[in-house]
Amino acid sequence: MDFKTLNTSTLANYLRTVPSVTALLGDMDALDIVEVGDGNLNYVYFVSSRANPRDSLVVKQALPYMRLVGESWPLTRHRSDREAHALRQFGALCPQHVPQVLHFDSEQSLIIMQRLSDHLILRKGLIQGLRYPKLAEHLSTYLAQTLFHGSDLFLSAAAKKQAAAATTNSELSKITEDLVFTCPFEDHASNAYSPALPRTEIERLHNNPALRVAAAQMKWAFMNQTETLLHGDLHTGSVMVNQTDTYVIDPEFACYGPFGFDVGLLLANFFTAYYAQDWQRPQAGEDPAPYQDWLLAQASSIWCGFSDKFLALWVAHEAPTTQSFMGDARDADSLARFRTSVMRQIFSDTLGFAGCELIRRTLGLAKVAEVASIPDTQARAAIELRCLRLGEALLLQRHHIIDMNQVLDLAR
Amino acid sequence: MDFKTLNTSTLANYLRTVPSVTALLGDMDALDIVEVGDGNLNYVYFVSSRANPRDSLVVKQALPYMRLVGESWPLTRHRSDREAHALRQFGALCPQHVPQVLHFDSEQSLIIMQRLSDHLILRKGLIQGLRYPKLAEHLSTYLAQTLFHGSDLFLSAAAKKQAAAATTNSELSKITEDLVFTCPFEDHASNAYSPALPRTEIERLHNNPALRVAAAQMKWAFMNQTETLLHGDLHTGSVMVNQTDTYVIDPEFACYGPFGFDVGLLLANFFTAYYAQDWQRPQAGEDPAPYQDWLLAQASSIWCGFSDKFLALWVAHEAPTTQSFMGDARDADSLARFRTSVMRQIFSDTLGFAGCELIRRTLGLAKVAEVASIPDTQARAAIELRCLRLGEALLLQRHHIIDMNQVLDLAR
Repeated sequence: MDFKTLNTSTLANYLRTVPSVTALLGDMDALDIVEVGDGNLNYVYFVSSRANPRDSLVVKQALPYMRLVGESWPLTRHRSDREAHALRQFGALCPQHVPQVLHFDSEQSLIIMQRLSDHLILRKGLIQGLRYPKLAEHLSTYLAQTLFHGSDLFLSAAAKKQAAAATTNSELSKITEDLVFTCPFEDHASNAYSPALPRTEIERLHNNPALRVAAAQMKWAFMNQTETLLHGDLHTGSVMVNQTDTYVIDPEFACYGPFGFDVGLLLANFFTAYYAQDWQRPQAGEDPAPYQDWLLAQASSIWCGFSDKFLALWVAHEAPTTQSFMGDARDADSLARFRTSVMRQIFSDTLGFAGCELIRRTLGLAKVAEVASIPDTQARAAIELRCLRLGEALLLQRHHIIDMNQVLDLAR
Repeated sequence: MDFKTLNTSTLANYLRTVPSVTALLGDMDALDIVEVGDGNLNYVYFVSSRANPRDSLVVKQALPYMRLVGESWPLTRHRSDREAHALRQFGALCPQHVPQVLHFDSEQSLIIMQRLSDHLILRKGLIQGLRYPKLAEHLSTYLAQTLFHGSDLFLSAAAKKQAAAATTNSELSKITEDLVFTCPFEDHASNAYSPALPRTEIERLHNNPALRVAAAQMKWAFMNQTETLLHGDLHTGSVMVNQTDTYVIDPEFACYGPFGFDVGLLLANFFTAYYAQDWQRPQAGEDPAPYQDWLLAQASSIWCGFSDKFLALWVAHEAPTTQSFMGDARDADSLARFRTSVMRQIFSDTLGFAGCELIRRTLGLAKVAEVASIPDTQARAAIELRCLRLGEALLLQRHHIIDMNQVLDLAR
């Protein structure tokens, strides 16, 4: 069937043809279908049984342009294949943290998946000051499982090369290359500066050659270090949570890249959430300090948990064989030192990518809601200044920062 | 036509069907066809017109196994596609240094190309103490042209990703991963130690965790830094020379990898040639010092020439546009600093790869003729010790060595 843009009525007819859907939803004449209306790239529908609204699913269709902008920003529907592939791969590795794919139709660029109706977008939860006791544990597990298993540390060299070649995602990677690593570091037309953010501060960053070089080095690493299959857009808007569950959604930016990219982006979004509490908690009549402490503790636990679990996966994978990435000789000192050097490199990269994310979310096109929604322009600018300062410090000091405690000190 | 292993008589029939061949060779009933018999991986034939022996060409056929070992080491014929593609790409970039491809038949894994009958394999020339006045100039041009144009510094991000995905060469890359980066750094069964090489020295290297870690880091870089299309096996046996010309042959190991890999392997082979003169020149009744000075000068000129030409290509490519890899803003200081940082990284990688090559050519399976052919086992071992010491120093000090002068001091 040729590609057709679906709408709420044609979608109902389509769904009748999918056995896994009819099995789930029952009476196909009594469905509620709603276009969610908040996708940046794609159209997203919630479909539920009128009789049993808990029997429900999500349909995501990629059109040949960016939904948020319209047909003036064409995009191939290739991203849908990338997303479905990544959902399935990540889902196989940690099914408890990735929505289940019920059906994928490459021709229609359409993914039908598990609906997370009891879950909230993490970014919204953090704006409300909510705490999720299992969040860091879950996210660090997700990161370790997905990043380890796509790499040369787990896959055979041939399988890894094959996987990297098969997951090229040039169009969406280009958006990252431009909007994360390039435009925010110069006075680009696509940037958006908040009204009260001092122009002198923006110029100071744009005229700092060391900072521009650091950003270019991270861009180079993103484009050339094909270490593992990344989610590619792992901010707090790509995570859905409640008190017991954590799900990572929307991997349409999935591509091979450096381990530190997903980790760094995620940590940076905890730092923007942290700074935003200077405004958000007092608005709710609360002292920001306790929740800010909790947010920094999450960032720290995510890194430390990821690092511990990644190393544990690595050690466990090599333990029963005579082979390690280094070779056959099981010299414990060499193995330990090499693992330390890899984790050190991932940490530096993580800090560099976090620095880019903090700066691009402040000066670049795409903002974070917790900061951009602040109506008091002075308060917003004060928070943005803190984001910029931390981003700058992380980028410039990434090779010298020893551990997460030092990062938290910088953040404070 | 199904794949058929050709021999000298069936090859004659095949050649009749190729117009570019009949046009060159004329009378197809009066050909001399000789199997060269020195290919490691493939069968190579020289074909010439009996009437005009200067009308001549080379035919290379890949069989589904490694020629040197036989059917017990199976290899897909995929390498022939990789070689033909690389010969054409490198040939388009510097036709003066790459043999011309007259015909490629993917089904038969057969490449017909320009014969270099007035040229000698560089390794053999260096054993004989021959000087090539244009060698460093030519090799540095070849390196700069091929390495620059395959990278994100020249290609669009999408074209580069496409090129990297299309040139996966897992089977031959695996040989490099094992035989260059892994086995030589442990007491592996595939290693071959020369009779008089002190066992204590071999054990000292194998029991040095810092060295094993450095080798593993270079292996990681080779497998994960997909920076540009490499030749992949650029030693002095892959170069054919005379007093006026330099050609680089045999790129069947071509794959995407770090800039420094080709440069480092090539430099290392000048260092093995340098040390081998301790034996080779006195054998010819000559003082080794002048020729050794010339060899080190070549290594230095190749690096410096490559570095200058690579930078010049980069600057020239970005000059007429408003765009650079860093972005639109033409801040001269940032551009210069970023270029310096990239060249610094290429230099460190070059030294690390040269170090691996020096050690693997001494302890690993594949030797270099200038050293392995020395019948005096004590003299050979003394030379091998110098190779090992330099390899070790380059690997361990690669981040701290400032320039080629320091490398030459270490070599001496």
